[in-house]
Amino acid sequence: MDSKEKRRGILERLNAGEVVVGDGGYVMQLERRGYVKAGHWTPEAAVEHPEAVRQLHREFLRAGANVIQTFTFYCSEDKLEISGNVTNITGAQINEAACDLAREVANEGDALVAGCVSKTPCYVKSHSETEVKAIFKKQMDDFLKKDIDFFIVEFVDHVEEAVWAVEVLKTSGKPVGATLCISPHGDMHGVPPGQCAVRLVKAGADIVGVNCHLDPLTCVQTVKLMKAGLEKAGLKAHLMIQPLGFHTPERNIGGYTSLPEYPFALETRAITRWDIHKYAREAYNAGIRYIGGCCGFEPYHIRAIAEEVAAERGFLPPASEKHGLWGAALEMHTKPWVRARARREYWENLLPASGRPKCPSMATPADDYEKQLETKIQM
Amino acid sequence: MDSKEKRRGILERLNAGEVVVGDGGYVMQLERRGYVKAGHWTPEAAVEHPEAVRQLHREFLRAGANVIQTFTFYCSEDKLEISGNVTNITGAQINEAACDLAREVANEGDALVAGCVSKTPCYVKSHSETEVKAIFKKQMDDFLKKDIDFFIVEFVDHVEEAVWAVEVLKTSGKPVGATLCISPHGDMHGVPPGQCAVRLVKAGADIVGVNCHLDPLTCVQTVKLMKAGLEKAGLKAHLMIQPLGFHTPERNIGGYTSLPEYPFALETRAITRWDIHKYAREAYNAGIRYIGGCCGFEPYHIRAIAEEVAAERGFLPPASEKHGLWGAALEMHTKPWVRARARREYWENLLPASGRPKCPSMATPADDYEKQLETKIQM
Amino acid sequence: MDSKEKRRGILERLNAGEVVVGDGGYVMQLERRGYVKAGHWTPEAAVEHPEAVRQLHREFLRAGANVIQTFTFYCSEDKLEISGNVTNITGAQINEAACDLAREVANEGDALVAGCVSKTPCYVKSHSETEVKAIFKKQMDDFLKKDIDFFIVEFVDHVEEAVWAVEVLKTSGKPVGATLCISPHGDMHGVPPGQCAVRLVKAGADIVGVNCHLDPLTCVQTVKLMKAGLEKAGLKAHLMIQPLGFHTPERNIGGYTSLPEYPFALETRAITRWDIHKYAREAYNAGIRYIGGCCGFEPYHIRAIAEEVAAERGFLPPASEKHGLWGAALEMHTKPWVRARARREYWENLLPASGRPKCPSMATPADDYEKQLETKIQM
Amino acid sequence: MDSKEKRRGILERLNAGEVVVGDGGYVMQLERRGYVKAGHWTPEAAVEHPEAVRQLHREFLRAGANVIQTFTFYCSEDKLEISGNVTNITGAQINEAACDLAREVANEGDALVAGCVSKTPCYVKSHSETEVKAIFKKQMDDFLKKDIDFFIVEFVDHVEEAVWAVEVLKTSGKPVGATLCISPHGDMHGVPPGQCAVRLVKAGADIVGVNCHLDPLTCVQTVKLMKAGLEKAGLKAHLMIQPLGFHTPERNIGGYTSLPEYPFALETRAITRWDIHKYAREAYNAGIRYIGGCCGFEPYHIRAIAEEVAAERGFLPPASEKHGLWGAALEMHTKPWVRARARREYWENLLPASGRPKCPSMATPADDYEKQLETKIQM
Repeated sequence: MDSKEKRRGILERLNAGEVVVGDGGYVMQLERRGYVKAGHWTPEAAVEHPEAVRQLHREFLRAGANVIQTFTFYCSEDKLEISGNVTNITGAQINEAACDLAREVANEGDALVAGCVSKTPCYVKSHSETEVKAIFKKQMDDFLKKDIDFFIVEFVDHVEEAVWAVEVLKTSGKPVGATLCISPHGDMHGVPPGQCAVRLVKAGADIVGVNCHLDPLTCVQTVKLMKAGLEKAGLKAHLMIQPLGFHTPERNIGGYTSLPEYPFALETRAITRWDIHKYAREAYNAGIRYIGGCCGFEPYHIRAIAEEVAAERGFLPPASEKHGLWGAALEMHTKPWVRARARREYWENLLPASGRPKCPSMATPADDYEKQLETKIQM
Repeated sequence: MDSKEKRRGILERLNAGEVVVGDGGYVMQLERRGYVKAGHWTPEAAVEHPEAVRQLHREFLRAGANVIQTFTFYCSEDKLEISGNVTNITGAQINEAACDLAREVANEGDALVAGCVSKTPCYVKSHSETEVKAIFKKQMDDFLKKDIDFFIVEFVDHVEEAVWAVEVLKTSGKPVGATLCISPHGDMHGVPPGQCAVRLVKAGADIVGVNCHLDPLTCVQTVKLMKAGLEKAGLKAHLMIQPLGFHTPERNIGGYTSLPEYPFALETRAITRWDIHKYAREAYNAGIRYIGGCCGFEPYHIRAIAEEVAAERGFLPPASEKHGLWGAALEMHTKPWVRARARREYWENLLPASGRPKCPSMATPADDYEKQLETKIQM
Repeated sequence: MDSKEKRRGILERLNAGEVVVGDGGYVMQLERRGYVKAGHWTPEAAVEHPEAVRQLHREFLRAGANVIQTFTFYCSEDKLEISGNVTNITGAQINEAACDLAREVANEGDALVAGCVSKTPCYVKSHSETEVKAIFKKQMDDFLKKDIDFFIVEFVDHVEEAVWAVEVLKTSGKPVGATLCISPHGDMHGVPPGQCAVRLVKAGADIVGVNCHLDPLTCVQTVKLMKAGLEKAGLKAHLMIQPLGFHTPERNIGGYTSLPEYPFALETRAITRWDIHKYAREAYNAGIRYIGGCCGFEPYHIRAIAEEVAAERGFLPPASEKHGLWGAALEMHTKPWVRARARREYWENLLPASGRPKCPSMATPADDYEKQLETKIQM
Repeated sequence: MDSKEKRRGILERLNAGEVVVGDGGYVMQLERRGYVKAGHWTPEAAVEHPEAVRQLHREFLRAGANVIQTFTFYCSEDKLEISGNVTNITGAQINEAACDLAREVANEGDALVAGCVSKTPCYVKSHSETEVKAIFKKQMDDFLKKDIDFFIVEFVDHVEEAVWAVEVLKTSGKPVGATLCISPHGDMHGVPPGQCAVRLVKAGADIVGVNCHLDPLTCVQTVKLMKAGLEKAGLKAHLMIQPLGFHTPERNIGGYTSLPEYPFALETRAITRWDIHKYAREAYNAGIRYIGGCCGFEPYHIRAIAEEVAAERGFLPPASEKHGLWGAALEMHTKPWVRARARREYWENLLPASGRPKCPSMATPADDYEKQLETKIQM
């Protein structure tokens, strides 16, 4: 049996009104597991340590993910070269190995494989459409040698670059999703979310949304603005969201990379599985049907999405066999006060203590975005 | 070549004054990865999903661990039966599979395998020395069918039960380490740490210390009290520590299981790698030479221990190839303010924000330990 | 010598570019001293306990205030009647006694007396221009029997009502200042600050600005928006500010009355004298020349304004004889670490701990303003 | 009628089992009002600005105080000289003026006057019993020229100095109360609270307890330890407490003078009236019958003590005519959500937000007391 023929494509699923659960974040989680170098954030582990990448793919699949993204973040030739982290492995090797790993694990379940491209250093440096498109083309060609189902453009903070990527990837004939890492205040050139969405859809994107940089509820707000923009323009597209798995109440334009805790002290800000339930419901209510996560989303966060939308999907993910819904399995605990936590109200209403009485609760972003923001509000 | 003959034992290493790096926590991390059920906390994944356990062992090894503990937490027959989580797998099967997995990975490096036993429900229920010892004997016999290097008794909160375990395990002729999950205020019967240590050493423990329940610096304090007790009694033993990877400023007797965030909202309290540097140094300065972690310790925390004591050990762990010391690799980052974080002072002095302005920083433990504590102080 | 003839009026001072220091908050401070009833907030103490009102006036004068406001908050006949707190004293009696007290103390220094009116229940209830204006007219007539220098309309959250008050008070021929208790998002009908300012100036206000409801830096932002509105309209007016003396990082439209701590647990949010230095400088830099405070501003906060603008004014206030600038007098302290605090950098950079580890740092306003705000941002 | 003859003395009241409400803090409150210089903390305002001192006395009386303490803090000759703050006024002048002011206001109600002495620089400098006692004798002689009812020794952190003061003051034949500013860990020489109490009672103190330095609940704990010490020694004395009005969760030995916020940024830590209710009840339940406050206690805090023990005393204080019990007067408020706060449960359960998301909740005391403490715990 050819798994490919059997698979229902991403658009078939979304067009049918299904909820598609995305996977979580790779680079940050693999950094913690010892396979990715922070600062570089390149995915050479796909070649060097395939067992580690495979296992993380598997955990996301088991948690309920319908899509396995290729572990190809920052895997454009220009980025790899600048980074200098990988000297004996080519981008093509990584891209191809990553496709194979994603495919192998996706086939262990009912998942699709998305070939992923992200922003290129070339864009900011050269601002040349030709050069940037050539880079995306090269990466696409690597993917097309392998068996992938659709493309995702992600972690791009200038809509113009994302538009270029979409234009390239659409030449493949495969569906394309595009997510910007922007705040409700718009992209790095100040283009508001609604307008960004319009430009992406006009460029051919089938699915649009945001990923990374800001916390789940902020990202839902941004996607809502995108949706409103599309409606105003009389356009239609599927919506997707893969937010940051850390609380960013500062809601600054640059997001978590501007916060003092980035990237090695973000533990404090990590979202809980209960935060995820709220997020998944908000996203669903906003009409978003492709719901996943980015940096900070571990397997149990993806499982929490799948559990929140279990009624809509009609099933629980495999990993829920090791998870009592809303803490139900705590009924087995030896301490009576822990047993008393085996219920939804407890976890929904808990305000978790930071455990750090000498630390603040919000930070000053290390850039001048706050001032920029104030200026915008004053206008 | 027989790897067993080549290996230098735990006591050889400690007697030579070497720093032994322990591994991190299994059940909590595998819960997040989707393989352990909270509330039960039993290790059937060793049989059901060996690839997941193997991968986590590998990550700890790669992070610098000198010891791989068997994934046999709560794997006594009485606990498995009460838990009811595992119906078609016996404790013996798990224990044996866990030994094989630990051995397989340990042999990929220079690590030892420790067979681990933890507290039994039987102790509190029956308080029968005969019954409890029979349970430990059965688990020991499973281990002795396999190739393990020494034993660890861990997560026991009554010193009496730990003494019984030590007495059983010493009959194997192998070295035994014993760690209690107690606070500086003593065990659950009020036996102070110094006296606990004396009783464990008199029972035959070669290494004594604490694990789990409270945060690293609190645990260092408890081990210091143990050391002082041993010195006062004219006894000698190696010291070990495998603390909780969450901040517990409440320092309540029962530790994290009594905090409102246990077990599903502890993210906020997670220690950073920089907290680990301070901890590892404090532990080393206190004369502790077996330094590891328990619940909440992920591979990057173990790597941080290995990096902090790299000078003393004379080498960095394999996973440091993906980690710039003290954030050095951030020099590659595109944002200037992130590049400015590529230095030790930055991370040592950072007070990370919680990102949760509507949450408190300390909690009220959900038991009456605070009152107990106050009573003790008043005495 | 007639003090009246000697006095330079408010407009003379402002026209000359002088900084006018306002006084602080009366009702909240007198509530704490035992003379005002929270919930009612009416000023019958002017008749019942003149010594208490006189003393607080004196403290503000001594702290550097150039204006003593009559203690006539909520002293319209309709408010007194609804409140029901005062049965045997008429509004006229209070207004007149308050004028005498303010005059008496103002004459002890070089201060002016401002007759103050605030929002009326009648406005929201009847929305009748005739009725509301009659109420303001009655209160004005009380004031005009006494020796006051100018009028202040304050604590009005609908610009329309403030316009009506200004129109009435301008018939006296005396200068009129008008401050709204609004956020940067505008008045309760959604009229933005810039437009509010334009309407007030067109109605005849000589000085416009904001008072109460939100913290100092937020109020500075609102006045900046007013200034921008006036400039855009080609209008000119003096700017004044008398913000809330409590931190309100929530910046919700309704301000502190919507916060859970209002009115009996606001201690935690109280601004320090060092917060005031920043505020006074920001206000000055924004072109505001009438700088005072409202609820939460105690005498030492007013002194801090006067000290911050001492160079501009050319003198320190009398109460500075009991205050070492920037903590200088701590050089006398017995503890060396306290002596080390006798310097500006220490206090400017201090992040004061709340002393409440079980409390949050921000609250959820008890109304639906947050949602309103989000809706506005989404537009 | 001679008011003196009519008055029932402090011991008559306490012997009869009555609750005696103390007054609040003078120096910190008058610093904020502009009459005391921080760092010096001397009470020359009694001569320079009697109206300010008189008004604060009155507010405490009106709030329910049964005792008016003379405003004579740090008014020993040696302290005044070292301070250098007062050049043209003698200590005797201040002491006498302060007695007159206290008497004048006390006679406006049913209050007693307590002549107060505090620790002398001489003690630490000379450690000479003769010299220190001479200083106390001189101050006592000033008081005895005036009409005072009893003496209070307060703010002494070495029990030995307090014992000397008691021995001197007992020669007057008047009752003597003695309060140390110590933590549950004992005085500055390490004498534990129980032993301190025993020494003070043996020296002749009729009433013993603690004042200042630490927050109310911590001070209650210290007085409990004193009580236990007295009981163990078979001694009897009345207990009194006048704690700090700021939260000090650090519970460090030196108290608030060692915290970074001392003395100019303590606002954040200020106790609410609802904190006072809990404190007054705890103090009462611990058998303490003289219940007042020290630095940080404003008139409304004293009123809250009087309201909490109103049932026991049989009456409310005069200032309660301007205070709805437990917020009852909020029923008059215009906003429905504020009206909903007119009830006890609301205020008892409120966790007030700090309003400072960039600040911590606990601080590191600026001394080495924490280390001292840890050392003690380890013993």
